[in-house]
Amino acid sequence: MAMKALIGALLVTSALTGVALAQAEPVKIGVSIPAATHGWTGGLNWHAQEAEKRIEALHPNVDIVLVTADGPADQASDLEDLVSVHQIDALVVLPFESEPLTEPVKQVKESGAFITVVDRGLSEPGIEDVYVAGNNTELGRISAQYMKSRLKEGDNIVILRGIPTVIDTERFDAFIAELEGSGIKVLDDEFANWNRDDGFEVMQDFLSRFPDIDAVWAQDDDIALGVIEAVKQAGRDKDLFIVGGAGMKDIIKGVMDGDPLVPVDVLYPPAMIATAMDVTVAKFTSNGPVQGRYVLGAPLVTQENAEQYYFPDSPF
Amino acid sequence: MAMKALIGALLVTSALTGVALAQAEPVKIGVSIPAATHGWTGGLNWHAQEAEKRIEALHPNVDIVLVTADGPADQASDLEDLVSVHQIDALVVLPFESEPLTEPVKQVKESGAFITVVDRGLSEPGIEDVYVAGNNTELGRISAQYMKSRLKEGDNIVILRGIPTVIDTERFDAFIAELEGSGIKVLDDEFANWNRDDGFEVMQDFLSRFPDIDAVWAQDDDIALGVIEAVKQAGRDKDLFIVGGAGMKDIIKGVMDGDPLVPVDVLYPPAMIATAMDVTVAKFTSNGPVQGRYVLGAPLVTQENAEQYYFPDSPF
Repeated sequence: MAMKALIGALLVTSALTGVALAQAEPVKIGVSIPAATHGWTGGLNWHAQEAEKRIEALHPNVDIVLVTADGPADQASDLEDLVSVHQIDALVVLPFESEPLTEPVKQVKESGAFITVVDRGLSEPGIEDVYVAGNNTELGRISAQYMKSRLKEGDNIVILRGIPTVIDTERFDAFIAELEGSGIKVLDDEFANWNRDDGFEVMQDFLSRFPDIDAVWAQDDDIALGVIEAVKQAGRDKDLFIVGGAGMKDIIKGVMDGDPLVPVDVLYPPAMIATAMDVTVAKFTSNGPVQGRYVLGAPLVTQENAEQYYFPDSPF
Repeated sequence: MAMKALIGALLVTSALTGVALAQAEPVKIGVSIPAATHGWTGGLNWHAQEAEKRIEALHPNVDIVLVTADGPADQASDLEDLVSVHQIDALVVLPFESEPLTEPVKQVKESGAFITVVDRGLSEPGIEDVYVAGNNTELGRISAQYMKSRLKEGDNIVILRGIPTVIDTERFDAFIAELEGSGIKVLDDEFANWNRDDGFEVMQDFLSRFPDIDAVWAQDDDIALGVIEAVKQAGRDKDLFIVGGAGMKDIIKGVMDGDPLVPVDVLYPPAMIATAMDVTVAKFTSNGPVQGRYVLGAPLVTQENAEQYYFPDSPF
């Protein structure tokens, strides 16, 4: 576009936006998330900041107040401030834990604010207006489908699980159910706590116990990093492949580059906070209804589509 | 805001937007919906047009192509044109019927376009990237909860159903399940085909057969209009109340005005097409992922919250 045409377009845009601007009420949206303590929350924080910049540039009447907490008590106090100091019209919250945040979020709701809950549900139904979350069952199923597409009857896999939680159980049960009848053998499964060091240790143990492993389901990219290290140290990186989960940039880069050790990833993206913020903004700017449950898919990230999931500037 | 400050703000906005504009690729989004043949689709068309205007004003790089069809064959041909003539990057489609539109939508998908399906699912899973829909089960449950809050053991209701479809069955089963154990008696249920005239006839029959009716579940606002007429003609409008469903403006207006005959409504809004369009635009403008299932709630519309669901300029 020539500069003159661009300026012309901008002036038209400004004129149009001007009408909307003059009419649009100011809207204040509080966003409360855990601080960037590990990989996934690092990505969460980065994407929330990116969304804040993008949304505020697009909607001059929308003010985003982003606060991060070091624990449940800290987050509860953040929520109080968002109501009393900032007088927010809406809250987007990814609760540190379900139980201790249920009452504080309920109090924000009682102030009249619109409530969007992300990823971890509250302990009591009906508080939030919108729930935005990843799909753990689909993550398990899609991972097993990929295993079936690459392996044959009699092949062996090992599984590294997360932390004993509903999230982990949903992933694991769906994976096992999808694998049934395939003749692929699960040699063992152990918890690796969504942690790189634990992933390394558990995988070292698997490698010493099982001489024939064809694939590893790590179900998480932090764990996968530890697994990769253990497998390379053992010199068995030509014998197997690893399927993680989340969408960590190092893993996505490997998929993009065609790394045979990490041929795919399954999405459970920290960028879901941006989706939740978009949906919440729509409550104040759109003629479409905003409420209900928005459960994001867990698509298979392959060499063909990896680029759209790659954020090189994100810490995760 | 003073005019000078407003202009200043606009210039800043333009400068910011300018960067985005210069970088933003043009995006063409096809929206294919049934023509405005009856009440709900009338609202659908109006809200799609409103969303088109709003989205194009906000995103100068986004071009919406809205097409309406008179039947499944017509819609299939619209989809072909959207690909071959308009070369769309994404499709938002509310299929006329599931079966005959499944293959045509699949072909749009194969052209590389992003697919958002609204309200009626396709016959084959996995074609769409996003599914946006109302919640029929919740509509039934919320309606029954309201009945329980107003009626007592031994009170009588009649039910007017829609057309024998999955949608109708989901609504009806959830309503009956929620009512169980309340002691409220369902005198009879009959199909009224989501149609005002049929609603009038079925209700006339109910009124002649049952001298004591305390409430009517019409589960649809078109049917409710017919019911209201029959009840008023019979002079029994002081004896009972009616619960419809959808969010028709005449019914919402009644709720706003405190009409005791129509004290509430339950939302199943044609404006969901605008939500689907917003979500699809986010695919090209947001850092948040866009995929999965967005199932809208079916909230109870009461005198307190009715205003936010009232669109006086909509035909529905």
